[in-house]
Amino acid sequence: MTAAYVLGTGMVPFGKHTDKTVEEMGRDACWQAIQDAGIDPRRIEAAYCGHVFQGMNAGQRVLVDLGITGFPVYNLENACASGSSAVLAAAAAIAAGQADLVLAFGVEKLTDRFQGALTPDPGDLEGYQGMTMPASYALRAHRYMEEFGLTREQLAQVSVKNRRNAAHNPNSQFHQPVTVDEVLGSRLIADPLRKLDCCPVSDGAAAVVLGSAALARQVGARAIRIAGGALTSGKFEDRPLPMTFEDITHRAAQRAYAQAGCGPGEIDVVEVHDCFTIAEILRVEGLGLFPRGEAGARIAAGEADIGGRLPINPSGGLIGKGHPLGATGVAQLVEITTQLRQEAGVRQVEGAKVGLAHCRGGSVAGTEGGACTILILTR
Amino acid sequence: MTAAYVLGTGMVPFGKHTDKTVEEMGRDACWQAIQDAGIDPRRIEAAYCGHVFQGMNAGQRVLVDLGITGFPVYNLENACASGSSAVLAAAAAIAAGQADLVLAFGVEKLTDRFQGALTPDPGDLEGYQGMTMPASYALRAHRYMEEFGLTREQLAQVSVKNRRNAAHNPNSQFHQPVTVDEVLGSRLIADPLRKLDCCPVSDGAAAVVLGSAALARQVGARAIRIAGGALTSGKFEDRPLPMTFEDITHRAAQRAYAQAGCGPGEIDVVEVHDCFTIAEILRVEGLGLFPRGEAGARIAAGEADIGGRLPINPSGGLIGKGHPLGATGVAQLVEITTQLRQEAGVRQVEGAKVGLAHCRGGSVAGTEGGACTILILTR
Repeated sequence: MTAAYVLGTGMVPFGKHTDKTVEEMGRDACWQAIQDAGIDPRRIEAAYCGHVFQGMNAGQRVLVDLGITGFPVYNLENACASGSSAVLAAAAAIAAGQADLVLAFGVEKLTDRFQGALTPDPGDLEGYQGMTMPASYALRAHRYMEEFGLTREQLAQVSVKNRRNAAHNPNSQFHQPVTVDEVLGSRLIADPLRKLDCCPVSDGAAAVVLGSAALARQVGARAIRIAGGALTSGKFEDRPLPMTFEDITHRAAQRAYAQAGCGPGEIDVVEVHDCFTIAEILRVEGLGLFPRGEAGARIAAGEADIGGRLPINPSGGLIGKGHPLGATGVAQLVEITTQLRQEAGVRQVEGAKVGLAHCRGGSVAGTEGGACTILILTR
Repeated sequence: MTAAYVLGTGMVPFGKHTDKTVEEMGRDACWQAIQDAGIDPRRIEAAYCGHVFQGMNAGQRVLVDLGITGFPVYNLENACASGSSAVLAAAAAIAAGQADLVLAFGVEKLTDRFQGALTPDPGDLEGYQGMTMPASYALRAHRYMEEFGLTREQLAQVSVKNRRNAAHNPNSQFHQPVTVDEVLGSRLIADPLRKLDCCPVSDGAAAVVLGSAALARQVGARAIRIAGGALTSGKFEDRPLPMTFEDITHRAAQRAYAQAGCGPGEIDVVEVHDCFTIAEILRVEGLGLFPRGEAGARIAAGEADIGGRLPINPSGGLIGKGHPLGATGVAQLVEITTQLRQEAGVRQVEGAKVGLAHCRGGSVAGTEGGACTILILTR
């Protein structure tokens, strides 16, 4: 099995784009990626679109707007990991030799559909009784604080770091850094989580052009290799789920590391699914990047800052850059690619050679969730 | 590239299942397919779920109900071709050697969401002005009748044939045959199409277990080979689209025939996407199975009956069996597999060796549609 390469990236800055349709956002991101790759769009053989709420044939609608039609288009959904699922499907087609040049993108316009936080799905009885996403992460935060002595201030530092990184990212929803006091003074959402512990409601789009090794050689040093990728779903458990350790992330990571032929010690930069401050802590421990129970304190101490031992979410993450569900996983890949190309400007992680992107999607009763995706990139 | 094989099939009879959840329907169809294949469900390596309206992580929710979790699950959407898109993605994973045993299924519960016909998507301005699915096919029917002299009675014969076939299919929504007079006397929907020219609103689920050649050898003669498969999207046209010829179906068919190494003359049995009576006529001509302009008259003359030259929709098709969007494409595969296994009982097409399943999904402005899928099976 050969590897797939990222040849080009594009994205529409995340934010509240009430003036743009989802087709326009998708089109702009895809066109940027095509231009960045320097390829003739007519050579694209297939497209994979990740989204959650954008209706039937969203990918096709974007591509009609772009003027590239008539080839296979797959729309993929895996909740908040929809975009990365589309990337994995696209990379698999190249790795299998079924195509040499494909487009993977993610789109989402949430402001059309939700005024504030996302409401539970119809039929989600637990959600309607209060067990929403913020509530379930609030329980995990309480448990982690109790078990490992994480302080409320340390938890806030995750948001402070990600908002600081976001301020340097032109593609971010937020450009204003926040302080620990501002996090602690923001509106209570689900104790102990406050508004600035949560990712915002966002619109946006992101795209990557993926190609075979032969095409990567033509592109040269700016082509970034997808060395490993994994998707897994949560396991059903007939006992209470562990709240402070993410087995789904751990299992996906083991597979991705094995495929890439590396371990957590070789990762230079990471984008993780920080839908809430506590989520970043749980995920980097699940990935084996920080010892269990220590990530919170170490992030607070600056170890995950740009310039620290292992920068986490240099893009600003979901908390700072925004979280338009289907676009998120693709935008992570855009950031890791930019970092490995050494083109991240003031956000640059010096000498980054190996990067990892982690996404989590959905909550399925009795399991740890619907999907976890991991992509490991190397230059 | 090796071929994938259908090792087992299952489905929940289509109909109005107000008493069953989508998870229950999906679980029952998957479990039947697993039992039919005679495999240990713990050996399944990945799952591909096609659906349109079933919310986040629908595939995972079905699999949790079934008790098989912890592996990659992809949810695919391509409007009415969602189920067949899931099958194609699953078959590609096997063909690429990325997995040896996968599950592909489709689920849909429409009665929760729609009282009668499907309403246009928000933002579908043409739909809200009246250009709904029945209306667009009504225009095509008028044009075809004008161009090729098809009579209203001949058009009705498509429904009569499919309802007759459905009456012999225990998995059908309708078990009562209809007459030409009943079709012509049914309620007018969009002139010239009447209620019995249209597929119904349905709930249901269908599943297939797909495996590699090595596993197919273990299963023996009941394993049916997927010899060819194609997915394509509609081309954007800046001129009026042809109304009486389906270019999208024609293009997909050319690719599928080439992959299978056969032509339309070798097909023994076909399931096509007869969302309306006129649709069946347009599709079998696009597939090259009947000369252009002649399919209507030939179907009316009995050429497509079970026992005729080329049986079309022996299952009853969408009109007779029902059309729970995401499940439809998988159910077509269930029927073709049953036919090639010579297990279709009174619906059996004698000696059927090569079968074709055709699905069409979605309407995207300025194009012929979102997706067309074709699967060619051989025994």
